[in-house]
Amino acid sequence: MSPYKLLSTREVYRTPWLRVREDRVTAPDGSDATFSVVESKPGSTVVAIDAAQRVWLIREYKYGVGRECIEAVSGGIEPGESALDAARRELEEEAGVVASDWLELGHVDPFTAVVASPNYLFVARGLAPGRRQLDATEVIHPFQVNFAEAVDMVLRGDITHSASCLAILKAHLAGVCG
Amino acid sequence: MSPYKLLSTREVYRTPWLRVREDRVTAPDGSDATFSVVESKPGSTVVAIDAAQRVWLIREYKYGVGRECIEAVSGGIEPGESALDAARRELEEEAGVVASDWLELGHVDPFTAVVASPNYLFVARGLAPGRRQLDATEVIHPFQVNFAEAVDMVLRGDITHSASCLAILKAHLAGVCG
Repeated sequence: MSPYKLLSTREVYRTPWLRVREDRVTAPDGSDATFSVVESKPGSTVVAIDAAQRVWLIREYKYGVGRECIEAVSGGIEPGESALDAARRELEEEAGVVASDWLELGHVDPFTAVVASPNYLFVARGLAPGRRQLDATEVIHPFQVNFAEAVDMVLRGDITHSASCLAILKAHLAGVCG
Repeated sequence: MSPYKLLSTREVYRTPWLRVREDRVTAPDGSDATFSVVESKPGSTVVAIDAAQRVWLIREYKYGVGRECIEAVSGGIEPGESALDAARRELEEEAGVVASDWLELGHVDPFTAVVASPNYLFVARGLAPGRRQLDATEVIHPFQVNFAEAVDMVLRGDITHSASCLAILKAHLAGVCG
């Protein structure tokens, strides 16, 4: 139940991937306030671990933060697609890998005050080769490290993407690698 | 080094808290592409733990996700303010607590593809009463739980705010509560 009473809402920006709306509200103290909310496609993030306990990571220039990042496999959920189906699709497209065993680890909200874009977290095991297929504009470098090293990369700050960090630490604390 | 060549940029939306820009670029394959980037104030998040290993959490309606959330203490960094100073200020304003011992745990990027808004993570120990002081439009309920319970709340999905989740799990794996 929202403590804010909505007075009016307007869309201030929209692309196929992003919508920004501005809500005028009455706050609980009776004053008027304005909230801007960024709506983006929900996403899925996958920690894919092979039989040798090696995890697939992706090195990619991320435009939002303006630098090359190391992350788990992740991407947006298309309309009509489940979070798990998006995770399966992104894993095959980005790393060229399919998986037989899937574990759900809940979701993360990147920035609850401003952004509506939940990201669903998965561990994938039982890996086998699939068919890698990238968008023409994507420059993605998949590679593997030991799972324990991926945990250290989060703790050291070499991985900062929130959903990747959470997926790796939750997988670690769930004991997926013993 | 960006693999994208910037052709033009324009601001499509701005408030005191948020700026959205649209960049036209040439992608590495030679095609034209458009990226929208949401710039928001950087933030700080604090896991404040008292001598009895109890951590301060905040229950608050978060407008972006449209529901009441449980989170660590967090807030935006004001211009000219350091991440640590913002953490100190937010801890006193929201929980009414000051702290003598501070540990930095790096930062998290909420959504690297779209959002530029790093969030800096801290553990605060050596707590003492301060002076609670809220904005008129804030409805914030601070409370305490055992640190081990806060970790379980992240693993169960009761806490989903990315910076709060990371700060709590990083603090746990750093062994701050033994």
